Amino acid sequence: MQRYFVKNSQIIDNKVKLMDQDAHHISRVMRMKIGECLICCTEDGKVAKCEIQEITNDFVVAAIIKWLDEDKELPVFVTIAQGLPKSDKLEFIVQKGTEMGASCFLPFFASRSIVKWDEKKGRKKVERLEKIAKEAAEQSHRTKIPIIKEPVGIHELIEESKSYTYKAVLYEEDAKLGEKSNLSSILSKLDSGDSLIAVIGPEGGLTEQEVSFLCQNGFIRCSLGKRILRTETAPLYFLAAVSYHTELLG
Amino acid sequence: MQRYFVKNSQIIDNKVKLMDQDAHHISRVMRMKIGECLICCTEDGKVAKCEIQEITNDFVVAAIIKWLDEDKELPVFVTIAQGLPKSDKLEFIVQKGTEMGASCFLPFFASRSIVKWDEKKGRKKVERLEKIAKEAAEQSHRTKIPIIKEPVGIHELIEESKSYTYKAVLYEEDAKLGEKSNLSSILSKLDSGDSLIAVIGPEGGLTEQEVSFLCQNGFIRCSLGKRILRTETAPLYFLAAVSYHTELLG
Repeated sequence: MQRYFVKNSQIIDNKVKLMDQDAHHISRVMRMKIGECLICCTEDGKVAKCEIQEITNDFVVAAIIKWLDEDKELPVFVTIAQGLPKSDKLEFIVQKGTEMGASCFLPFFASRSIVKWDEKKGRKKVERLEKIAKEAAEQSHRTKIPIIKEPVGIHELIEESKSYTYKAVLYEEDAKLGEKSNLSSILSKLDSGDSLIAVIGPEGGLTEQEVSFLCQNGFIRCSLGKRILRTETAPLYFLAAVSYHTELLG
Repeated sequence: MQRYFVKNSQIIDNKVKLMDQDAHHISRVMRMKIGECLICCTEDGKVAKCEIQEITNDFVVAAIIKWLDEDKELPVFVTIAQGLPKSDKLEFIVQKGTEMGASCFLPFFASRSIVKWDEKKGRKKVERLEKIAKEAAEQSHRTKIPIIKEPVGIHELIEESKSYTYKAVLYEEDAKLGEKSNLSSILSKLDSGDSLIAVIGPEGGLTEQEVSFLCQNGFIRCSLGKRILRTETAPLYFLAAVSYHTELLG
């Protein structure tokens, strides 16, 4: 069933008022009719089955007929701290990372990031990433939309990381040296409700200085298997490993 | 160090003759000079450090100075049997799947595949995918290039699957129903040298009939966590889980 994320303010008297792109999607793209059902996810992650009662040019009203007990989120809050990559790779990472269950994306200016982040255009970029995250969350049947943060410097990143239960830095040089137990060691310790932040370098990788600085601040160096992954592939491997370990491994 | 895949016939008297795109890449793109070193990987997965001895307009000759003991491949042979997806998704799957360690890609015509596969253009498409696999293998420092097969029907796919140690069908309906132990159960049994084939549906998913038919032929239904993954994301999750379980999990 098609699902839509709605703000709590859109719910009044057990009815949801869907507007703008969502209303357009329901009436024009999906061509749904009165009496048909859809799923609405609220800001606090609750999920309701709703029946369409009214369709106008501007909005759609759907009555909540049942609250569902859905559990589609990773048991831990995972933030991907991504060294700003080139071109549209951040969009790719947000889309696929959302499908794989990330809770937050925090881009940062790494030493080897060569992308400029224009303050004015920056807000628009974040909005575009938020839209991608919302659509990917709907498509993958999640109950929460990941948070997209504006890019920060490494000092702010470290400040931000202090609230996390576990901190990992994914470093390809460690893969070359054969490090292989740190990631599974972290994932084995995770309890439901914990938070985990993973730092990933941009195209040229992290510098040895950045890695040292992160490690001085509580980050654990982890490799992701024996092969060298592209910057946009590493977060997906990481998220799949988190899901596999916490959701599927007996 | 830059690496190149060479055929055994290119090695004579402990010297490697690199031609065409590789020669162009060495002399024009990387602008390497005589005396500089590169890595050559042979067809049987052996890896040599070589020193450039001669650069002409047509070829580059490099002397083998040392055979290296590299182990960059997954301990198991993994084939991604991918229901033919739309547009350039197969290219994406081959590129990222190669980074993640797949040994073979076998596209198949699923009931819900809507792509036409033109016999004449088909060979060109396979060649293009082979080029993508070769470049991704070089970039990720693998020692083997994955095999790209031409698309088959489901009966041929089942015939082909008979030689594999383990067979999995990744089915999103099982994720919705909460199945979660089958994948880890298969991965726990894997021994080094085993082979594993995973069937993944196209955009619309596999039909219940296809899944039943595969299961009658020894495939095990597996879910990939609680979220619904796009067709091009599922093989990456699967490969990351195989790598994580076989290479990193203690």
